[in-house]
Amino acid sequence: MSDFWGSRIKLAIFGESHGAGVGIVIEGLPCGMPIDFEAAEKEMARRAPGQSPLATARKEADTVEILSGVYNGKTTGSAICAVIKNTNQNSRDYGALPRPGHADFTAAARYGGHADMRGGGHFSGRLTAPLVFAGALAKQVLAKQGICVHGRIAAIAGITDTAEAPEKESFCNAAQKPFSVINDAIGEEMQNAVLAAKAESDSVGGVVEVAAFGVPAGWGEPFFNSVESTAASLFFSIPAVKGVEFGAGFKLAEMNGSKANDPLCVQNGQITTETNLCGGILGGITTAQPVTARLAFKPTPSVAKPQQSVNPKTLQTETLETHGRHDPCVVPRAVPVAEAALALALLDCAPQGGNTW
Amino acid sequence: MSDFWGSRIKLAIFGESHGAGVGIVIEGLPCGMPIDFEAAEKEMARRAPGQSPLATARKEADTVEILSGVYNGKTTGSAICAVIKNTNQNSRDYGALPRPGHADFTAAARYGGHADMRGGGHFSGRLTAPLVFAGALAKQVLAKQGICVHGRIAAIAGITDTAEAPEKESFCNAAQKPFSVINDAIGEEMQNAVLAAKAESDSVGGVVEVAAFGVPAGWGEPFFNSVESTAASLFFSIPAVKGVEFGAGFKLAEMNGSKANDPLCVQNGQITTETNLCGGILGGITTAQPVTARLAFKPTPSVAKPQQSVNPKTLQTETLETHGRHDPCVVPRAVPVAEAALALALLDCAPQGGNTW
Amino acid sequence: MSDFWGSRIKLAIFGESHGAGVGIVIEGLPCGMPIDFEAAEKEMARRAPGQSPLATARKEADTVEILSGVYNGKTTGSAICAVIKNTNQNSRDYGALPRPGHADFTAAARYGGHADMRGGGHFSGRLTAPLVFAGALAKQVLAKQGICVHGRIAAIAGITDTAEAPEKESFCNAAQKPFSVINDAIGEEMQNAVLAAKAESDSVGGVVEVAAFGVPAGWGEPFFNSVESTAASLFFSIPAVKGVEFGAGFKLAEMNGSKANDPLCVQNGQITTETNLCGGILGGITTAQPVTARLAFKPTPSVAKPQQSVNPKTLQTETLETHGRHDPCVVPRAVPVAEAALALALLDCAPQGGNTW
Amino acid sequence: MSDFWGSRIKLAIFGESHGAGVGIVIEGLPCGMPIDFEAAEKEMARRAPGQSPLATARKEADTVEILSGVYNGKTTGSAICAVIKNTNQNSRDYGALPRPGHADFTAAARYGGHADMRGGGHFSGRLTAPLVFAGALAKQVLAKQGICVHGRIAAIAGITDTAEAPEKESFCNAAQKPFSVINDAIGEEMQNAVLAAKAESDSVGGVVEVAAFGVPAGWGEPFFNSVESTAASLFFSIPAVKGVEFGAGFKLAEMNGSKANDPLCVQNGQITTETNLCGGILGGITTAQPVTARLAFKPTPSVAKPQQSVNPKTLQTETLETHGRHDPCVVPRAVPVAEAALALALLDCAPQGGNTW
Repeated sequence: MSDFWGSRIKLAIFGESHGAGVGIVIEGLPCGMPIDFEAAEKEMARRAPGQSPLATARKEADTVEILSGVYNGKTTGSAICAVIKNTNQNSRDYGALPRPGHADFTAAARYGGHADMRGGGHFSGRLTAPLVFAGALAKQVLAKQGICVHGRIAAIAGITDTAEAPEKESFCNAAQKPFSVINDAIGEEMQNAVLAAKAESDSVGGVVEVAAFGVPAGWGEPFFNSVESTAASLFFSIPAVKGVEFGAGFKLAEMNGSKANDPLCVQNGQITTETNLCGGILGGITTAQPVTARLAFKPTPSVAKPQQSVNPKTLQTETLETHGRHDPCVVPRAVPVAEAALALALLDCAPQGGNTW
Repeated sequence: MSDFWGSRIKLAIFGESHGAGVGIVIEGLPCGMPIDFEAAEKEMARRAPGQSPLATARKEADTVEILSGVYNGKTTGSAICAVIKNTNQNSRDYGALPRPGHADFTAAARYGGHADMRGGGHFSGRLTAPLVFAGALAKQVLAKQGICVHGRIAAIAGITDTAEAPEKESFCNAAQKPFSVINDAIGEEMQNAVLAAKAESDSVGGVVEVAAFGVPAGWGEPFFNSVESTAASLFFSIPAVKGVEFGAGFKLAEMNGSKANDPLCVQNGQITTETNLCGGILGGITTAQPVTARLAFKPTPSVAKPQQSVNPKTLQTETLETHGRHDPCVVPRAVPVAEAALALALLDCAPQGGNTW
Repeated sequence: MSDFWGSRIKLAIFGESHGAGVGIVIEGLPCGMPIDFEAAEKEMARRAPGQSPLATARKEADTVEILSGVYNGKTTGSAICAVIKNTNQNSRDYGALPRPGHADFTAAARYGGHADMRGGGHFSGRLTAPLVFAGALAKQVLAKQGICVHGRIAAIAGITDTAEAPEKESFCNAAQKPFSVINDAIGEEMQNAVLAAKAESDSVGGVVEVAAFGVPAGWGEPFFNSVESTAASLFFSIPAVKGVEFGAGFKLAEMNGSKANDPLCVQNGQITTETNLCGGILGGITTAQPVTARLAFKPTPSVAKPQQSVNPKTLQTETLETHGRHDPCVVPRAVPVAEAALALALLDCAPQGGNTW
Repeated sequence: MSDFWGSRIKLAIFGESHGAGVGIVIEGLPCGMPIDFEAAEKEMARRAPGQSPLATARKEADTVEILSGVYNGKTTGSAICAVIKNTNQNSRDYGALPRPGHADFTAAARYGGHADMRGGGHFSGRLTAPLVFAGALAKQVLAKQGICVHGRIAAIAGITDTAEAPEKESFCNAAQKPFSVINDAIGEEMQNAVLAAKAESDSVGGVVEVAAFGVPAGWGEPFFNSVESTAASLFFSIPAVKGVEFGAGFKLAEMNGSKANDPLCVQNGQITTETNLCGGILGGITTAQPVTARLAFKPTPSVAKPQQSVNPKTLQTETLETHGRHDPCVVPRAVPVAEAALALALLDCAPQGGNTW
C-alpha cells in the first residue's frame, strides 16, 4: 500500500504527472481551524517550477482546489481533499527507453507495464505539490503551539553552507530567501555549480537540512513510532532522497560516548540538553531542543548527456539522451517539501490530550 | 502508537528490560511453514550479550517461548506470540539521575514519570531480541524465494572495513564471523579501539551495512511504502540509530547525475542496473540488484566517565557516572538486528500474488 | 478517524452534500484492469435520485471524474481518485433547528459547530455515491473469479418479499429491476406503502438483503477480520443502517443447535454445507455457499410532519417541519449501496496469493 | 489480517484453545493508571467456565499474567501484554470429522490444514478471555469519565427478558447476578430451557443486550468509524454472533419516520433525545443517551445429537456425535464479553483532546 500514510493524522496521496491532476486527502486536523490559504500558497510557490534558471522551465499554476472538508474557510473535521490540476503537460518529452536513475523499469516490473509513466507519472516530483499543501496545514497547527519548521540548502554539489547548528532565526531567514542558504556568498557558488552542470547537460544533488523549533519535550515514542521512524518514513517518500540523518547523524558513529552525549541542563524550568548532537530526539522522543534532520538528494537523473539504457523489446543496450524540461538540481525546490514532511511527521507524533491518568 | 508496525506483515512488540520479559506478536507469515528454530537460535545468539569482552557482561539465556501460532513445528496462520523471559536483571545498577544520551528525561516528559525505566525499560536494546526472532522467521520466508540478508560492521570509531560494494559471498562470510567484518585485520583495529574506549570508561559508535541479495525487481512502491520508507521506519526503531542511507546515500548528493545514474543492462533476461549506487532501489522499487543500506549507530550513552546531569527534584546540575554492565560498543551485536529489520521490511514490501489483472 | 478504511484494499472517502463534490480514493485493485465504466455507470444510476416518485425529486448527474490511477482505460496500480461534483444543491432547504433523527446536534457536539451540515453535509446519503463507484470496481475484480453480488428489497414498511433463501438467479433478476424485489405483486404493495407515507408527509424504512454468489471456501479469518466484522463495519457506515445480520441472524438465537447447524455435504469435490443458515460464513471464513446479509434501514428522518426539536440558542423546544426534497424511503436506492459494501468487504477478505508454505 | 484491531487503542490477540495459552497486547491506554486487578478478575470470573450446570464442566483458572506495560501496579504507557496460560486441555475430546456449525472445514480451506483446531484452536470462545481482560481495563478508563457498561441476557431459546429500554440501575443489577436477567422468574424459565436442551443432547442460542451509560454527546464519527461500525466490528469478532442491532434496530425498519425519530429535548443544559430508539447514536455519533446494542448468538454448534458431517479423506457423509464438555448455551457467559467489546469500541471512538481549534 503505497499511497496511504499516518495514524494520528492520515494522508492519501494520488495523481500522475501527466494525468488529470495530483492531490491529497488529509484527515485528523483540528476542526474549526481557519485555513491560511495565503500562507499555503506561499509554500506552494516555494516549490513551484518555472521560477529560476536553476529549475525546470515548465510553468505550472499549482492552484489548489479544495473539494471537501472546508466550510466558510475553516476545517469542518471531515477529510479534506485538495486537488491540483495538471495544466502544462508535454508528453512528447518522454520516449520509450527506460531512463537510468528513474523508476521506468522498476515500475514496469512492479505494475506489469500498466503504470502511467508519462513525465514520471505517480513517481514524479510533482506529487510533492500536494504534500507541501498538506504540510502548510500542518505548519499552521504547529504554529498555534509555538512551533515553526524551517529548512535550508545545506549543500549542493559538495559545496556546503555554514556548518552552524540549526538556529531559529537563521533558518527562518534562509527559508524565506529565493535561494535558501544562510551564507549568500556560498549560495552564489552553489548556483554557479548548478549552472555549470546544466551547461554540461548534467545535474547535481545536495543536502537539505530541516529543523522544527519550539517542539516541547515528550513528543514521539520509542520503537516503531519514534520521531525518527515517523519522519524518515515521510522523508524517504520524497523522490530522490537516499539518505536521512538526525542531529549529528553519521558523525555520531565516529565519536566517543563521552563526547556524543549532550549534557543535561535546565531551560524554562525543565530538563533538556545543553548541546543538540542528538537532533532533539532521545529514545525516539523530543528533548525540547530543535528537531533537526538532514536529507541527501541524489542528482536529477534526467540528464541530456548520453547514457546507457536498454531497449525493452530487443533487450539490447542503447544510448539515451534525456532532453526535455528538467531541473538541473531539485534541492532548492525540495526545501519546502522536506519542511512539509517534518511538519506532518511531528503532527503524527504529537501526544493526545488525556493520555496521562 | 509506538508498538505496532506493518501492513502486509504486522508486528506488536512489548516488554521492558527489567520486567517479566520481552516479546513480539507476528502476523502475516505463510501458514504451514516449518519453523527453523535452530536458525532462529543462531540469530538470537549473534545478538545475545555476554559473549565477548567487547560486550556487556550480562548473560541472558534469551530462550524464546512460543505461546501461539505454531503447531507441530509449523506456522498455523494465526498470530505468533514469542516471549523471552528476563532472567538476569540487576536493578541496583540504575539510579535516580537522568542519564545523558538516554531517554530518561524524555520518557518522563512523555509518560508522566510512569515508564518503567529500570535498565532502560521499553527503550532498552533488549527489545531488539524479539525483533531478531521475528527477523529470523522473515529470513526463512525470504530464503524460499532465493533471498538472503547479511550484514557487516562497516565502521567502528571511524575505522572502516574495506569499501567494496556489498557482494553476497563476502557479506555472507562476514555475517557468520564472531566479529562481522570482511577484513579481519581491520576488524582487529576496531576491536582495539573498542577496548581502548572501554579502558577509558568511554564508548564508541559505528556503522552497520546490510544487504539483501536475490530480491527480484518490482518489490516496493513509490511514496509512503517505498522500500526506503519501509526499511527506514524499522531501522530508526532500533535504539541508537541516528542515520540511514541506501546505496551510496549521502555520497550521491555530491555527484553529478551522469555519474550517479547506474547504467542499465540486462541480466538473466531482464533489465537491471550495471552498478548499484542506488542501493537496489529506484522509485521506491527494487531493481534486482542487492538492496543495500548503512545505519549509523551512536556510541553507547552509558559511560562511566563523569557527565553532567540534572537532579529532577532540585533542578540543579549534578555529576553522574554511569556504572553497571554496558556494551562499550553496540555495533557488533547490532548486525543481526539490522538484518532482521531489513528482512521484515522486505517481507512487508513483497508484492502479493494476483496483483496484476 | 472516520474517512479511511481497509487493509488489503484501502478507501478514503470525502465530500459534503452541498460542497464542491464527493469522492473516494481507492487503493489495492489489481493493476492493468480495464475499467468497465459502463457497468459502473449502471450501478451509479441504480442509486441516483430523481428517477421515481418514490425518491427525492433532486436530480444529480452523478458523473464520475477520474483524477488518477487510470491510464488508457486501465488501472495503473496507483491510487484511483474518483470525484463526483455536486450540481444541484439547494441550500435554502435547510434551516437552523436540529432535525430529529439526523446528526445535526451530534455533529455539533463532535465538531464544535464547524461541520458543513447543509444537506446533511458529510453525513448525507450522497456520500454513498462514491462508495457505489468503488463497489463497481470491486464487483469487476470479483467477477473475474466467478463471484457476483446482488441485492434485493427484502422488506419495506413491514411488508416482506418472498422469504426464500438467496439464490443467484432470483437475486440477479431482482437486482436488475427498477424496484428490486423478487415478487412484483408484493413490490407493488411496498410501493403503495411508500406513497401512502409520502402522502401523509411521513416516511418508511425497510430491509435490504444482499448476497455474494460464487465465493470459494476460505475467505476471511477468525476474530477481528471475520467476514462478518469486515462487512458489518462497512454496512454500518451506510447512513440509516441500524441492524445487520448474516444468514438466519437473529432467528438463529431462537433455534436449537441441532437445527441451526447446517449439515455438511460435498459439492464440486469439496466440503461445504447443505443448507445455509450460517449465511455462508463459519468461524468468520466463507463456506462456499452464498454469503448473505440483511441490513435494517430506519425510515428517512426528514419528514414534513411536525416534530419536536430544540432551538440551540434558547434551548427551548420548538416544532419543526422538514420540507425539501427527500426520499420517503431510501431502501430502493440503498440496494446497490449494500451490494457495493459487500463487494468491497469481500475483496478486503480475499486471501493473498502465496499465503501457504 | 485477523488478529490486530483498532486505531486510537490497538489490540493484538493471540492463542489457541489447546496451545500454551491465549493473550492480548493492548496499546493506547493512559499512562499512570492504577490497574484495578480485582475488578478485572471479577470480569474474568463472570466469563469463566465451570461455574454452573448451564456451562461446560471444564474448569480453567484463567489467571492473567502481565508480561509488560505495568510497573508498580500502574500502566507505563507502553504496550501491555497479558497472557492466560491453558491448564485444562483435553485433546482427546476432539476427533477427525469436521463438526457442523464449526470452523473446522472453513479453517482447513483458509489455512491449508495447518491451523491448530484442537478445542477450536484460535476459533475457540476461549479467545474471549483476553478480550474480557482488555475490556476490564477499558471499563476502568471509561469509569473515570462517568461511563459504565452493563449487559444482560435479553433472550434465550426465544424466551425474552422484560422488554424495557436499557436503564442504568436495572442493567447494573442484572449484570451482577450470576444469571444476568432483569426478571428472575423469566430467568428461571430460560435456565430450564437450557437444561432441557442439554438433556436432549442439544443446545440453545439467545440475545445479549449491552448498554453504555453516561457517554457524552459527540463520540464517534460518520462513516467508517461510526460508533456502530466500530462496535459491530468487535461484536462480530465474538464467536457465534450472527446479528447486531443498535437501539430499536430491525424494528425501526417497520416504523414510520414520524415515530422512529426520537424527539429532541434538553438535559443537563444540552440537546439530546427524549426517547432512545436510535440506541444513543445518530450519524455515527453519540447522543448522550445510553448506547445500546443487541447481539444475536447462535446456539452452541457442539451437540451430542447425531449430525451429518463429511469425512475429508473419503468425501463421504458420516454421522457425527460431538461429545465432550461444551456449554449447552454460551449466552450467560457471553454477557461480559459483549460488554468488553462495547467498552473497547467506545474507547476507540472517544474524541482526542485538542481536536477543536
